[in-house]
Amino acid sequence: MDRFLDHGAKWHGEGRVITAGGDGRDTLIGYAGLRDRANCLSGALLDLGLTPGDRVATLAWNTQHHVEIWYAAMGVGLVCHTLNPRLTVAHLAAMITQADDRVLAVGAGLQEMAEALLAACPRLERLILLDNVGPDVTHVDLEALLDTHGRPTAWGRFEETALAGLCFTSGTTGAPKGVAYTHRSNYLHTLRALQADSIALTNADAVLVAVPMFHANAWGLPFAAPAVGADLVLPNRVTDGASLARLIDHHQVTVAVGVPTVWLGLLDHLDAVGGETESLERIIIGGSSCPDSLLRRMEDRFGATVQTSWGMTELSPLGAISPRSDKPGAARGSGRPPLGLDLQLTDADGAPLPEQRNAVGHLKVKGQSVIERYFDATKTALDPDGWFDTGDLAILDDAGNLTLAGRSKDLIKSGGEWINPVEIEEIVGALPSIGLVAVIGRADPKWGERPLMVVEPARGHDIDDAALKATLKGRVADWWIPDRIVRVETMPLAATGKINKTLLRASYGGA
Amino acid sequence: MDRFLDHGAKWHGEGRVITAGGDGRDTLIGYAGLRDRANCLSGALLDLGLTPGDRVATLAWNTQHHVEIWYAAMGVGLVCHTLNPRLTVAHLAAMITQADDRVLAVGAGLQEMAEALLAACPRLERLILLDNVGPDVTHVDLEALLDTHGRPTAWGRFEETALAGLCFTSGTTGAPKGVAYTHRSNYLHTLRALQADSIALTNADAVLVAVPMFHANAWGLPFAAPAVGADLVLPNRVTDGASLARLIDHHQVTVAVGVPTVWLGLLDHLDAVGGETESLERIIIGGSSCPDSLLRRMEDRFGATVQTSWGMTELSPLGAISPRSDKPGAARGSGRPPLGLDLQLTDADGAPLPEQRNAVGHLKVKGQSVIERYFDATKTALDPDGWFDTGDLAILDDAGNLTLAGRSKDLIKSGGEWINPVEIEEIVGALPSIGLVAVIGRADPKWGERPLMVVEPARGHDIDDAALKATLKGRVADWWIPDRIVRVETMPLAATGKINKTLLRASYGGA
Repeated sequence: MDRFLDHGAKWHGEGRVITAGGDGRDTLIGYAGLRDRANCLSGALLDLGLTPGDRVATLAWNTQHHVEIWYAAMGVGLVCHTLNPRLTVAHLAAMITQADDRVLAVGAGLQEMAEALLAACPRLERLILLDNVGPDVTHVDLEALLDTHGRPTAWGRFEETALAGLCFTSGTTGAPKGVAYTHRSNYLHTLRALQADSIALTNADAVLVAVPMFHANAWGLPFAAPAVGADLVLPNRVTDGASLARLIDHHQVTVAVGVPTVWLGLLDHLDAVGGETESLERIIIGGSSCPDSLLRRMEDRFGATVQTSWGMTELSPLGAISPRSDKPGAARGSGRPPLGLDLQLTDADGAPLPEQRNAVGHLKVKGQSVIERYFDATKTALDPDGWFDTGDLAILDDAGNLTLAGRSKDLIKSGGEWINPVEIEEIVGALPSIGLVAVIGRADPKWGERPLMVVEPARGHDIDDAALKATLKGRVADWWIPDRIVRVETMPLAATGKINKTLLRASYGGA
Repeated sequence: MDRFLDHGAKWHGEGRVITAGGDGRDTLIGYAGLRDRANCLSGALLDLGLTPGDRVATLAWNTQHHVEIWYAAMGVGLVCHTLNPRLTVAHLAAMITQADDRVLAVGAGLQEMAEALLAACPRLERLILLDNVGPDVTHVDLEALLDTHGRPTAWGRFEETALAGLCFTSGTTGAPKGVAYTHRSNYLHTLRALQADSIALTNADAVLVAVPMFHANAWGLPFAAPAVGADLVLPNRVTDGASLARLIDHHQVTVAVGVPTVWLGLLDHLDAVGGETESLERIIIGGSSCPDSLLRRMEDRFGATVQTSWGMTELSPLGAISPRSDKPGAARGSGRPPLGLDLQLTDADGAPLPEQRNAVGHLKVKGQSVIERYFDATKTALDPDGWFDTGDLAILDDAGNLTLAGRSKDLIKSGGEWINPVEIEEIVGALPSIGLVAVIGRADPKWGERPLMVVEPARGHDIDDAALKATLKGRVADWWIPDRIVRVETMPLAATGKINKTLLRASYGGA
């Protein structure tokens, strides 16, 4: 990890980290300056009594201080555990306890939550306040720590397989699981991302990181950007359309990275108040699938190419990306795996599908920077041939482009045959009268499982069961059509915004 | 190594290897087909009695068969030792003996030399004929071997630190030294080359490899191209301007890689007979420095960007490259190190120069895919901090761009102070009356060494000693001006075309 920033400081000293200020006054620092600060901060962390291998948690938005404490920790072999402030205190306390974090670095606006965590986690020793939130008599502030204990400190000097980071999965389909990254996996992931057909940052780029640093290391961008000297533009907490439009224009952003929702917000802002994103060359999206119509709208309005991608926390996270060199409008799905990663589709028993193209299968992944085991697991997460089961269903087109087709655990087994709820959800979800829809398996004494559909009608709409079933008739097999339909006022969502099927199954999955 | 071609076969089956035919009829094969052939050839090599770790030598030009035997050997843990057909039989026999090669694969036109090597090297067991040279009763032909013993064979199954390749340095300044590459070093080098600011091949590229496969794995291009699905265009033995122009046009080459001399030939051809290189986007040069005027002429005539680079066999070989994203006309020297490699300038005693910019120093390199020791060495080639001494003098500009400034062993120590012969050679070499010039140290009882100048006058020219010395007066320190000047009819050259200073020192370096 230290290598990325060392390389940036030495060979790309003109590259900068730019953090959006709440008042529109952004802060800037060059990689050489950032490296010196992070390096001195390493010494201060050691002076707090931390030793290599200890965990340092962070609860913060995308800011310079957050980047600094990452490098300060990782540079001397401490393990940086990123926490998602959108989770509950109870969830975070469980993660902190499992990780055995000793210190928690806290960003602006999150101090109250951090105090609660400090109270809830007896082994958590102290908070470090980031983002210059002002004097505090109880907790130490990063700048004060630098002033009092900062000192140049040798980086490196650990094995390449030493842990560098820790991140818990979102847990939409089960308990959150800890994913540990090593210096080796982060390094190889960065090289995967820097490939010319991948995220492909260069010295001339300014990359807007609209994906949070607590989501799989912000897709590795705080590592990739200094490695090549690209400007790293951090939006802080705020990712609304107006704020992003200002950052893009003001800092001549060339590459913008985030989930589709964020860019929809930017589109709506530009359409409402006008403005252009002239510097923008590429948008890289991931995290969820994106309809072709939205892709085209983004490319037209932003005057930029959209690269789709797919990843998982367990992969560090990049798993596939539409090649930068693909012609605009190429059928792309979520792209293809860059060198360093391989994909395979299998049947439910794990046997590779004889034909790997144009057939839905269970998606397995193998390669560098795929985790070997979860943080607290004693068992490997890989099968004997080294494949990691993503838990996703997927299909590959003729060119090898990946499209996800649901979660394998969401599959419904009825009379010994599989029903894929995603296919039903897509048809019903397209109806204007439907807000959200989920199809789950309900225990059935005769068939094992039968599909049950939960719908949240669109505001001011409703639709009767017969009409819903008629919509599906002829578009899926008759025996796929749900027997029961349940209406809910509000669909239960997980912290990531995805529908919480675990909860639905608990409520409606019984016989 | 197997991973590059496996990845290409699976995800970029449409990418091709194209080999120029002597008669202009080129052969083509997709990566999927090439992978199957190389994989079956692996089985045939094992059937010859070879076992993992054994060395397979190749004496061949850039052709499909040559690529196939590389992957066939490396895929099952055999070590591919590339030989330079431009060396003498005696030199090559010494290398084969040191490497303990068991088999020699021989390209078209090189069979006579290979027979001589077979006779000279008792432990060399057999030849394998490449390039369909026709039936031969004595030696087996690759196609015949595939027909009779080809069988699918499991690739991989060795440690990442297992040897993959062996290549001897050119030996311009000493005996050739064996450089061994591991699967790990080749893999990391490929990722270094694929970075968007580096060689940066993509799926949409067709890359013309005008650098021989026996020079540091053709700069790694036969690994990088299948990894991303770029077409690999192999010119066979012929790299004259007309042949290259035809290949570029016919196969829509986008990236062309080779030494400046090759592109000068292409320039001269286009200027003489006309024609354009419309598909060409980039030329990547290395191997020797290139005057700015030639760079500009190339960019203008080819309508392409030139990326300069510097490398060494010992680095796998890429050491620095001018970033692809640099603006045209940027001061570039030989570019900057991509992530994975670091450079440092030191004084003659190995202490880092306090100022790393704009001062000449001894160039040290550290990083992945830098050799740890030479093939037959028992001692490390690295200093205690892990730096490899390139033996070059160099300077870095403000942006970090590298320019070589001579070989450190060519420095002359006179009265305890250093004289850099390159500075003298550049001034004298610019005179129209001078063909070639070399300045070496001559033993001197009073000063230790004094500079001596060897000149090969340009045809039909001569210049007297006083005039030569007058040229230097005021442009270098008085005590740098050579005391003696020797005229030779023909300057001795090493196999690479560089002036053989070792020989000059032997002839003229005594007191």
